[in-house]
Amino acid sequence: MKALVYHGPGKKSWQEMPDPKIVGSADVIVRVDTTTICGTDLHILKGDVPAVQEGRILGHEGVGTIMEVGSAVATLAVGDRVIISCIKSCGHCVNCKIDLYSHCLGDEGASGIGWVFGHLIDGTQAEYVRVPYAENSLYKVPAGVTDEEAVMLSDILPTGFEIGVQYGGVKPGDVVAVIGAGPVGLAAIATAGLYGAGTIIAIDLDQNRLEQARQFGATDVVVSGAADWKQQVLALTDGAGVDVAIEAVGVPETFTMAIEVVRPGGNVANVGVHGKPVELHLENLWIQNINISMGLVNTNTTPMLLKLVAQHKIPAGKLATHRFRFDQFVEAYDTFARAAETRALKVVISRGEGDAPLT
Amino acid sequence: MKALVYHGPGKKSWQEMPDPKIVGSADVIVRVDTTTICGTDLHILKGDVPAVQEGRILGHEGVGTIMEVGSAVATLAVGDRVIISCIKSCGHCVNCKIDLYSHCLGDEGASGIGWVFGHLIDGTQAEYVRVPYAENSLYKVPAGVTDEEAVMLSDILPTGFEIGVQYGGVKPGDVVAVIGAGPVGLAAIATAGLYGAGTIIAIDLDQNRLEQARQFGATDVVVSGAADWKQQVLALTDGAGVDVAIEAVGVPETFTMAIEVVRPGGNVANVGVHGKPVELHLENLWIQNINISMGLVNTNTTPMLLKLVAQHKIPAGKLATHRFRFDQFVEAYDTFARAAETRALKVVISRGEGDAPLT
Repeated sequence: MKALVYHGPGKKSWQEMPDPKIVGSADVIVRVDTTTICGTDLHILKGDVPAVQEGRILGHEGVGTIMEVGSAVATLAVGDRVIISCIKSCGHCVNCKIDLYSHCLGDEGASGIGWVFGHLIDGTQAEYVRVPYAENSLYKVPAGVTDEEAVMLSDILPTGFEIGVQYGGVKPGDVVAVIGAGPVGLAAIATAGLYGAGTIIAIDLDQNRLEQARQFGATDVVVSGAADWKQQVLALTDGAGVDVAIEAVGVPETFTMAIEVVRPGGNVANVGVHGKPVELHLENLWIQNINISMGLVNTNTTPMLLKLVAQHKIPAGKLATHRFRFDQFVEAYDTFARAAETRALKVVISRGEGDAPLT
Repeated sequence: MKALVYHGPGKKSWQEMPDPKIVGSADVIVRVDTTTICGTDLHILKGDVPAVQEGRILGHEGVGTIMEVGSAVATLAVGDRVIISCIKSCGHCVNCKIDLYSHCLGDEGASGIGWVFGHLIDGTQAEYVRVPYAENSLYKVPAGVTDEEAVMLSDILPTGFEIGVQYGGVKPGDVVAVIGAGPVGLAAIATAGLYGAGTIIAIDLDQNRLEQARQFGATDVVVSGAADWKQQVLALTDGAGVDVAIEAVGVPETFTMAIEVVRPGGNVANVGVHGKPVELHLENLWIQNINISMGLVNTNTTPMLLKLVAQHKIPAGKLATHRFRFDQFVEAYDTFARAAETRALKVVISRGEGDAPLT
C-alpha cells in the first residue's frame, strides 16, 4: 500500500509501505477512505515530538471501511463504515473505567494506549491501517453522515468539546472566550452552546478566521492584534471578565491572554498543544479563585457528538475547506501548513479511483 | 480600646486606638474574646501585602460577643457569642448568589468586600471590632463549642476544606497528598475524610509537624527533605501518582512538588498564599489531563463545619497549641513566627480580666 511516512524533522514522503496485518485478536484492518491533517502532525514534522521515530506512518484521524477483523471482535464486521478515533483504549483498565481513555493503561506502544496513531504506532495517513482495541476505538457511521463530516469526529470535535467546553465547565448564560479560531477553536465554538453559553467570543489575529467563526456560532469576534483587544472582550462581560476562557493555540502568549480575561471564579481551559513552559503568576492568581484545566481528548463523547452531527445540529462539514486525493498528499500538507494564506481549516484527503487494493 | 496596629514593614504595637462605631445599618460591634494570628499576618508584616496601610489594626479571625447592632440587623442580638468570619459578604450580589463570597461586590473597602479585615478595614486583633454585613458574616456559636475550637472556623478550617478538599475534588477512595502540614494543611488533612479519601499523606520538612498530622487524620507521612520523598509518595499509590495534591505552603518549590506527584487525570489544589510566579511546564502537562485550582476561601461551608466541630468529628481544638492574653500580643506573634522552633500551630490570644470596657 501507499502511506505518508515521516523521515525525521522536515522530511516526509507518500511512498510504498507494507500492508498492515492483524496482530492482536482485538485488531481490525480498516481501508482508509478519508483522512485529514492535524496541527499536531505539523508539530511532529518540526521535530517537536521526539517520540515519533523515522519510518512512522503519520496521522490519527480517518474514516474508512473495515476489511478484516480479529478473532475476538464481535460487534464490528467487514464492510462497516467507521470513524477511526484518535484515541485507542482497552475499555477495561482503571483509567478507562473513569472515562480517562486518553491515559488508557493498555499494553500497545511504549507509553500505554491513548494517542498512539501516527505517534507510537503507524497511523491513518495511509491506504490501510491496523486498529488495536477496535471495538472501543471505532464508531460506526450512520447513513446520512458524510465522510467529511465524520472525519471531524476523529479528533477535533471531541477535543474542542471535551477539553474546551466540558473541562471549562461552561454553564447556561456563560460568557465564553475562545482564543484561536483554528479548527479546534471552532469545534469549541460550535459546541459551547450545548451547555447554554450565552455569549461566545472568538479571538484571533486573522480576520478571515473570525468571519468563519461566526458561521460556527461565535456571537462576537475580537481581533487579538488590536491594542484594545482586552477592553473589547471585557466590554462584552459585566466588566469583571469572561466565565470561561478556552485557549486553542498553544503558545505562552495566548495562555496569558486567557488568564488575563477570565473573571474571579472563572475557568481557563487549555486545549492548545504547548512546546514551552509558561509563567503562572500565582502571586496574583491565588486569590482569584480561577481554575486551569488541560488535557488530551478522551473521545468518550464521540457517540453523542456523532448523533448531533447526524441531526445537523453541529456544522461539522463546514470545517472541510480543501479537498485532495491520496496522490496529492504532499500538496495537502503544504496547503494546511500555509493556512493563514490558503484560508484552510481542515484539508480532507480521500482515496481516488486509482488507489491500490489491499493485497 | 487596645489593638495590634501595623506601622509599616516589620513594625507593630499593642496600643490605644479609638473604639469602633456603627457606620452602616447592617453593622455590628463585637467584643473580641479570642483571636489568633494567621500566616497572612506575617506576610503583611514583611510588607508583602502593600494594600495594608500603616495604622491598620491587623487580624481576620476571632470569636466574640455582640455589644451593639445596627438598625437593619434582625437575626443577631446583643450578647450573642459569634464566630467572626475572615470573609465579609453582602449576600445579595451576583458573586454571593453563586457562593463566591470571596469576591463579593459589596461596597465596603477599596476592592469590594471578601477579605477586608486587617487588610482594607480594621481587623480582629483588638478588644472590639466593627463587622460590616454582619448577618452574612457572623455565625452564632452553639453551646458546647469552646472559643478555641470556634476561632478555627474563622479561616483555617473552611480554607483547608473549601480550597483544598472541595476545589481538589476529593472523592471516595482517593489518595490525597497534602504538602505542608501547617495549620491550613492540617485543616485539609482533618477534612479530606469527609469526601471519603482512602489515603491521606502529609508531606513536610518538619518531623514534628508530621507527627501532629497523624492526630488530624494523616494515614501516612513523608519527610520532604528526604532524597526519595517522591518515590515514597508514589509507593503509596498504584505508581501513577496521587489523585489530589494539595499545596499548603505558598512557594514555587512546593507548587512544583504538587505537580510532580499528581497522576494523569488528577487535581492540584493550591491553597498557599504565593508571593512569586511559578513556571508551569505546559509542554509536559497539556497531555496529562490535570486540573489546577486556587483561591481565597468563601466560608460558605462554615455552618456545616461548625456542626461537625460541635459533634466532635473535627478535632478543631487540637490546632491551638499556645495561649496568650491580649497584653502578651507581641510575644504571641514572636511564638508564631518561630513555629519550627516553638512547635506552634495556632496561637490563641484571649481577653483577660483587666481589659477595658467598651466606652
